[in-house]
Amino acid sequence: MPHIPLPEGLPGIRGAMAFRPETAKPLNELVEVLLRGPNTLSPGERELIATYVSYLNDCHYCQSIHGAIAAAHLNGDEELVKRVKADFQHAEVSEKLKALLIIAAKVQKGGKNVTAEDVAHARRFGATDFEIHDTVLIAAAFCMYNRYVDGLGTIQPRDEIMYRERGKVVAREGYIAISKTYLPAEPVSR
Amino acid sequence: MPHIPLPEGLPGIRGAMAFRPETAKPLNELVEVLLRGPNTLSPGERELIATYVSYLNDCHYCQSIHGAIAAAHLNGDEELVKRVKADFQHAEVSEKLKALLIIAAKVQKGGKNVTAEDVAHARRFGATDFEIHDTVLIAAAFCMYNRYVDGLGTIQPRDEIMYRERGKVVAREGYIAISKTYLPAEPVSR
Repeated sequence: MPHIPLPEGLPGIRGAMAFRPETAKPLNELVEVLLRGPNTLSPGERELIATYVSYLNDCHYCQSIHGAIAAAHLNGDEELVKRVKADFQHAEVSEKLKALLIIAAKVQKGGKNVTAEDVAHARRFGATDFEIHDTVLIAAAFCMYNRYVDGLGTIQPRDEIMYRERGKVVAREGYIAISKTYLPAEPVSR
Repeated sequence: MPHIPLPEGLPGIRGAMAFRPETAKPLNELVEVLLRGPNTLSPGERELIATYVSYLNDCHYCQSIHGAIAAAHLNGDEELVKRVKADFQHAEVSEKLKALLIIAAKVQKGGKNVTAEDVAHARRFGATDFEIHDTVLIAAAFCMYNRYVDGLGTIQPRDEIMYRERGKVVAREGYIAISKTYLPAEPVSR
């Protein structure tokens, strides 16, 4: 049961966002630009980083929905998502993405863990300053989203089909567009 | 030295935000609504929560600037800010804020650490659902900002006077207004 009364029928972060639309707005804008905005990393690659960090933070809702969105961007390859979570060094992803996942995992433990050598390693595989910046911020942002979802004790269904179907819709329509279907048009007055 | 080339003369998160104005926008909007928007918790109380979480995450820049902003909101009481960081249970703050700081500290370690008992304890001292929500999200958000600032290896001056003076300005003008003084008016094309 959630720690505070959240709107029913909205699992994970959606219930929390519906409770507080004023903060939902920048939260949705941030994830939209980070995971779907113009970028030399594909949406699938960025969703894999988000999924991996959410897995490290043990957030069931976030790793399930972002894993499903990642798979939707990657021709439905759910096995690849599972392999990235279990052992990305042996997954079928680029060496550059592996190097960025190393940085993301360091950020998940705490920002100071990222070393000049981690960054130099990513650069050797072609990572740009922009990609390194976005990897750090995606990892940092999911340390927020995961704590928000778990810290409020939100409902997190165990229904894989729900995540798969929802993941396809989010991959197609995006975070801001989809949020309009469950957030009030005008912030609730208090 | 920062891990990527950030604009010079902008310490901490300001350099990172100037590097990537597209993500700076929602990051500033989030902190503005969380720490300065309409709320039954005062700006000073919310800055104390932000400062305490930044202290737990050992982020020098964030705990210094938010500590200075908190002090500016609290009649310049820098000693109170220090006492909250060192031992909030014996600081001159309300029992409600102490209970919310317990929740914030749990979120800093990971969202699942927050228990129904922590929430019931906060409610016994008058905390509302809205205040509990915002405490969880402020703590979660600073787990992001702290990792962003440290994960990029930003410049973090040891100059207390700089933080004190800047803190007064931010307390007076707010995050969005002040960001316009160092962020480009239009996002840089890439």
